[in-house]
Amino acid sequence: MSLKIADKTFNSRLFTGTGKFSSASLMEESLLVSGSELVTVALKRVDLKGQDDDILSHLLHPQFNLLPNTSGVRTAREAVFAAQLAREALETNWLKLEIHPDPKYLLPDPIESLKAAEELAKLGFIVLPYIHADPVLCKRLEDAGVAAVMPLGSPIGSNKGLKTIDFLEIIIEQSKVPVVIDAGIGAPSDAAKAMEIGADAVLVNTAIAVSQNPVAMAMAFKMAVEAGRMAFEAKLAQPSRQAVASSPLTEFLNN
Amino acid sequence: MSLKIADKTFNSRLFTGTGKFSSASLMEESLLVSGSELVTVALKRVDLKGQDDDILSHLLHPQFNLLPNTSGVRTAREAVFAAQLAREALETNWLKLEIHPDPKYLLPDPIESLKAAEELAKLGFIVLPYIHADPVLCKRLEDAGVAAVMPLGSPIGSNKGLKTIDFLEIIIEQSKVPVVIDAGIGAPSDAAKAMEIGADAVLVNTAIAVSQNPVAMAMAFKMAVEAGRMAFEAKLAQPSRQAVASSPLTEFLNN
Amino acid sequence: MSLKIADKTFNSRLFTGTGKFSSASLMEESLLVSGSELVTVALKRVDLKGQDDDILSHLLHPQFNLLPNTSGVRTAREAVFAAQLAREALETNWLKLEIHPDPKYLLPDPIESLKAAEELAKLGFIVLPYIHADPVLCKRLEDAGVAAVMPLGSPIGSNKGLKTIDFLEIIIEQSKVPVVIDAGIGAPSDAAKAMEIGADAVLVNTAIAVSQNPVAMAMAFKMAVEAGRMAFEAKLAQPSRQAVASSPLTEFLNN
Amino acid sequence: MSLKIADKTFNSRLFTGTGKFSSASLMEESLLVSGSELVTVALKRVDLKGQDDDILSHLLHPQFNLLPNTSGVRTAREAVFAAQLAREALETNWLKLEIHPDPKYLLPDPIESLKAAEELAKLGFIVLPYIHADPVLCKRLEDAGVAAVMPLGSPIGSNKGLKTIDFLEIIIEQSKVPVVIDAGIGAPSDAAKAMEIGADAVLVNTAIAVSQNPVAMAMAFKMAVEAGRMAFEAKLAQPSRQAVASSPLTEFLNN
Repeated sequence: MSLKIADKTFNSRLFTGTGKFSSASLMEESLLVSGSELVTVALKRVDLKGQDDDILSHLLHPQFNLLPNTSGVRTAREAVFAAQLAREALETNWLKLEIHPDPKYLLPDPIESLKAAEELAKLGFIVLPYIHADPVLCKRLEDAGVAAVMPLGSPIGSNKGLKTIDFLEIIIEQSKVPVVIDAGIGAPSDAAKAMEIGADAVLVNTAIAVSQNPVAMAMAFKMAVEAGRMAFEAKLAQPSRQAVASSPLTEFLNN
Repeated sequence: MSLKIADKTFNSRLFTGTGKFSSASLMEESLLVSGSELVTVALKRVDLKGQDDDILSHLLHPQFNLLPNTSGVRTAREAVFAAQLAREALETNWLKLEIHPDPKYLLPDPIESLKAAEELAKLGFIVLPYIHADPVLCKRLEDAGVAAVMPLGSPIGSNKGLKTIDFLEIIIEQSKVPVVIDAGIGAPSDAAKAMEIGADAVLVNTAIAVSQNPVAMAMAFKMAVEAGRMAFEAKLAQPSRQAVASSPLTEFLNN
Repeated sequence: MSLKIADKTFNSRLFTGTGKFSSASLMEESLLVSGSELVTVALKRVDLKGQDDDILSHLLHPQFNLLPNTSGVRTAREAVFAAQLAREALETNWLKLEIHPDPKYLLPDPIESLKAAEELAKLGFIVLPYIHADPVLCKRLEDAGVAAVMPLGSPIGSNKGLKTIDFLEIIIEQSKVPVVIDAGIGAPSDAAKAMEIGADAVLVNTAIAVSQNPVAMAMAFKMAVEAGRMAFEAKLAQPSRQAVASSPLTEFLNN
Repeated sequence: MSLKIADKTFNSRLFTGTGKFSSASLMEESLLVSGSELVTVALKRVDLKGQDDDILSHLLHPQFNLLPNTSGVRTAREAVFAAQLAREALETNWLKLEIHPDPKYLLPDPIESLKAAEELAKLGFIVLPYIHADPVLCKRLEDAGVAAVMPLGSPIGSNKGLKTIDFLEIIIEQSKVPVVIDAGIGAPSDAAKAMEIGADAVLVNTAIAVSQNPVAMAMAFKMAVEAGRMAFEAKLAQPSRQAVASSPLTEFLNN
């Protein structure tokens, strides 16, 4: 039941982000409660000069593996540069590749993402690209050597859930690398649904961070992800048009 | 965080049904694992003559409160008669009122349901009517003295989820008695969603009973219901059109 | 292809309402363009004393049949009284029965609606009740002698479209009287969809009246209703999971 | 109200395809009735040697502009070769660029599509690429000089409608070239909806060709597209949560 990406094994299928929390200590507590073992952090938020390295100091738990992301870059070239900085600063070759030239919707660039993925894979990075829910692009990234694909459920921060579900199902059917659904997951029910359709993991940030009670919400997501995975493994019944009564019609009145 | 209906307090917000399991012992194990404290059973399936009372013998756990249902009746008159039989046989005045004249979709009759609810309330029953997700009908049943309302999410056994969500939200907003969403909940994500919008409980039967692994599925529903409730209490963020990045745009490349 | 309700035959399957237009002359022009042959009007808006009967004077076209509605009544008793006033004032025994005790969502009362329908049918009215999309209630109204049923697509004025589609399909499958979808139709595409699933007609008001250009919008709805009906009769293909190319794969490159 | 793409002006916003019709004459009649002025044809189906050029002989009407497509190619290189063949055979530099390496779902390849679009634009082609509903890719294609973008609504031939609507809305908001929604449009209501959200045109093939009555269905799509466009121009009201009655509450009962 555990998940393997590259050389690491994860017991938790809930990956998390570190943005938007009202304080670093609230972030720390929430992420600990979430059970998350892979935590993404924007390179910008890491103090590259080593002073006041606030956010990192809150992530120094054996539970957490860091997944630096390239949020803010706009081209493959910038992404590769950022990845190298991140590797040096954080001493990990894991990388969440994010290239979004559009400042309004922060949607990823398929062309630059593939180009960067190819180069980063050659440079020895474990690349997890954040991309559109495009099944053909996912296969091309797989061929380029990424460790997992991270298609979006809906625009980042929109909390709209799995709007791309018809395409996510195709990606899951076809992918040989793990599929992590990223962006748009706004509620535990969305996370459960993602797992029910067979996703390998989800990445959640906004929905936990901006909740009125991030620690409780982190726990809710943890349970929902586990519930969804359990249901996937136990196999759900398919929707059907005609109702079939749970309680067979009785005839006792005629007896 | 516990739920009160009439004079009983429930720690679990997952109500369950007993139909369609492949064996009584599998039913017993699944329901125990689900944590459910209210279990509905069709009167027909109870051996009123006391012999071979198979199904009941599997429900003799302190965890379970029985909720006999009137599945199979077609009129208020039949429902009242069945309710009285059930009270005598099962020694409980709790009743899930189900009146569905339509053998194909098993949808409930609003007119007969209200009539029966009025009479049964006067006769001292704790009535939980299974009804369409009709906000006005729910208020009328509340006025008639029901202990809770049980609007449907979609047709029984359809596993289609919360198709009536726009009306469930109105019911939840207006109801002074607990709202239990019944019928159509096909996956843990549906149950979580029901709780996230503020339902007081859900009733699940088919989705657990017909799973390839009902015990695991029962556990999945238990966790999903708890996750959804926790998220409701911690307050979810609202969906928004424009994306807002979890990871603020970095400027490190310009530094 | 024409529609028959009671003794009248309609060439247009677009029924319309008269509320919310910015002026009576704009209403008149829009409804003429819509091709609508059945126009509902709230009794309140008709000057029962015969002076300044503004709205009616704009509806004096042979194209229009009037369908007075009982909007504003809260009980069957009030509805019957209003119906009799309407019959006298407007010299028609056609009636759109609307009973909505809830001032916020204006959802219809199933119990009072059935009671009023029974009585009005006995009094010789041609009754078209506005009701929830409740298949069992629709059958009971049919038994009570209504001329058509008017289930809602979503709450009045919400413009949310066919949220009740799963139940509308059952109603259409089972009904022996025409099914007119009322309330919630916010766009021509909604009206087309209603016709595609086999509804006999739709009633549209808000979406036309509050448009920036009601006359153009009336024409758009007219065309959409005709398009949807035509598609229903020509039979649509069913959705399928696997793609099937419109353009067969070519082999010319290998030639 | 007319649409301009490159140097051509279209009065009809319904583009059509030629696959799957049961006969060429039925195709001809349907397309004439549809009013379509741009008709796509797979290069493979054109007899490049000039004999028995059945399909083309049915498209020799002044109403039709031909849009050869590259269906069946798997790479940019193949696409450019096919485009050149098509230009020579059909004497047009218009081209629907389709590159789909996946034989099951026929989803387009973003990388090869951009590469081919860049090269074809340089070669003087009027390129209309069929692509995923990926807003960033659409902008890159626009920069590469395409004449329009053709994002998919759902997988080809699936008849599932506008599953990608959240992304189509972003594409429409951002695009400087016309947006033509292609693939998945299974019913006139889908086509109307596409126009209502501001698409410039739709391309329909399967839904017309496989209908029991393609000629009637072609007419239905024609009307639905016109209705949707008219509604877009007349501005639709927005969905709202709370109902607002079309018929103001009456007070006549109190008079």
